[in-house]
Amino acid sequence: MSSSPPGTVRFVGAGPGDPALLTVRADSLLRTARVILHDDLVASEILALASPEAVVLNVGKRCGAKRITQSDINALMIGFARRGADVIRLKSGDPAIFGRLAEEIDALSAAGISFEIVPGVSAGLAAAASLGISLTDRRLSSRVVFASAHRAPASQSEVAEDADWRGLAREDATLVIYMPGRDIAHLQRELLNAGLAPDTPAIIVSRASTPSQREHRATLSTLSSSPAFDAPSILLIGRAVAQKTARDSQQIDPAAATSSAWEEFLELLAPGLAPLAAETPRLEERTNSR
Amino acid sequence: MSSSPPGTVRFVGAGPGDPALLTVRADSLLRTARVILHDDLVASEILALASPEAVVLNVGKRCGAKRITQSDINALMIGFARRGADVIRLKSGDPAIFGRLAEEIDALSAAGISFEIVPGVSAGLAAAASLGISLTDRRLSSRVVFASAHRAPASQSEVAEDADWRGLAREDATLVIYMPGRDIAHLQRELLNAGLAPDTPAIIVSRASTPSQREHRATLSTLSSSPAFDAPSILLIGRAVAQKTARDSQQIDPAAATSSAWEEFLELLAPGLAPLAAETPRLEERTNSR
Repeated sequence: MSSSPPGTVRFVGAGPGDPALLTVRADSLLRTARVILHDDLVASEILALASPEAVVLNVGKRCGAKRITQSDINALMIGFARRGADVIRLKSGDPAIFGRLAEEIDALSAAGISFEIVPGVSAGLAAAASLGISLTDRRLSSRVVFASAHRAPASQSEVAEDADWRGLAREDATLVIYMPGRDIAHLQRELLNAGLAPDTPAIIVSRASTPSQREHRATLSTLSSSPAFDAPSILLIGRAVAQKTARDSQQIDPAAATSSAWEEFLELLAPGLAPLAAETPRLEERTNSR
Repeated sequence: MSSSPPGTVRFVGAGPGDPALLTVRADSLLRTARVILHDDLVASEILALASPEAVVLNVGKRCGAKRITQSDINALMIGFARRGADVIRLKSGDPAIFGRLAEEIDALSAAGISFEIVPGVSAGLAAAASLGISLTDRRLSSRVVFASAHRAPASQSEVAEDADWRGLAREDATLVIYMPGRDIAHLQRELLNAGLAPDTPAIIVSRASTPSQREHRATLSTLSSSPAFDAPSILLIGRAVAQKTARDSQQIDPAAATSSAWEEFLELLAPGLAPLAAETPRLEERTNSR
């Protein structure tokens, strides 16, 4: 051990996959990092931002033949930090959603290593955005439930896990389910048993925000016959995720968008907006002259 | 109306407030936008990124004396787009979470205006990150429920609203409640009535990620005596949000982080990592020579 001060570990959200959906801060940290420990699901386009001199290690638990335990990952973070290196612990999406962040924080705290969390765009939010839908809708859904279909071994019994959906599977909530692929037929049965209607709209989105994004629209009753999708994938279920054309369109006052109403609206907004009425034709000209 | 092609409306997530937590794409769009229609809660530091030539309008419903309706906002988006301007519709956090996005999408679809959604870091995720906590924890909480304490006038009855928390307020879920400030005593009663334990940890975070961030730690039973906080604020409730020191620390193998175990771990990770063992002292030297 040297006498140099220990480094800091930064848990950084890598977002859903598209490098443009990294936060400005994550982008900057990745480009200057010396040590990056990342999960399996972080897109190669994002890892490509790292400096050629950086130490970039895949510590994902699915990778190849080497079995890396949570304890190994903790030891790597602590080992690099104790040697004076700042460490980027890169997690897909947002670090605080299904990323085992709590366990890694506990390990750092026990070792006296300082840390910071840089939030990211969670994959569920990117999936909804890519489909052009809102997860909440005053008229249909006032709650969003983020859940994982994957059952990590935990202290709770299987019975408790099976009862888990009661109360969560409800008509006025949107379910955002991470890692639905492993046993979607089982998940379907659980949600039906929990009382969710068979015709509830469901969409699976694979690799949201990337060029290889794929999606499949179903209902809860047809979900188990969905094709297999590449990870990472997200399952959205609820009344709010139905295709836009299936929704009742809000009545638009046709006059509201005509020129006659235009200046009136600008006047309504705030005092001193008169110059904007003149601004509008300029916007038009600029567009035409492009 | 001119014959120029209509513009596109981009619903852009402004994130929690810190400009560094914008996505790279949002940052780029804001700097080059010609028309920005934003909500009240978007931070001034973010609006400052806009070009001096941009038309920047606060269309928030709380702003000043002018009452702007949802229909007015729809008409503005459509009006600018029909005049050929691309429009940024800037919403705090992520656009798909409690942002009335669905209603604005319906209006654009009815008017034949194309749109895109650029997801953002939701304020609840930023609040958790700023506190250094995870929203999920395999040992404590396997679900995250995003809800709004604000009751927007909707088609549902008050009775249905009051029953809303049953099933959602549960020991193994983390509640992330947006806009909790308006009647926190009422919210407290509802959650207690729904069966949540009085000693459930609760944290209010105001203006997460900004220099004026404030936080207040409580339990569900002491929540109603919390001080008032500036908007935007977020309320986190659940076993997972307790202070780190109150959690059982994971047992760390002390040998795992010592030098003797270090090369062994690097060997474990993948073949060809021998150079990393040599890399480690170099990292140390670099730190010392800073």
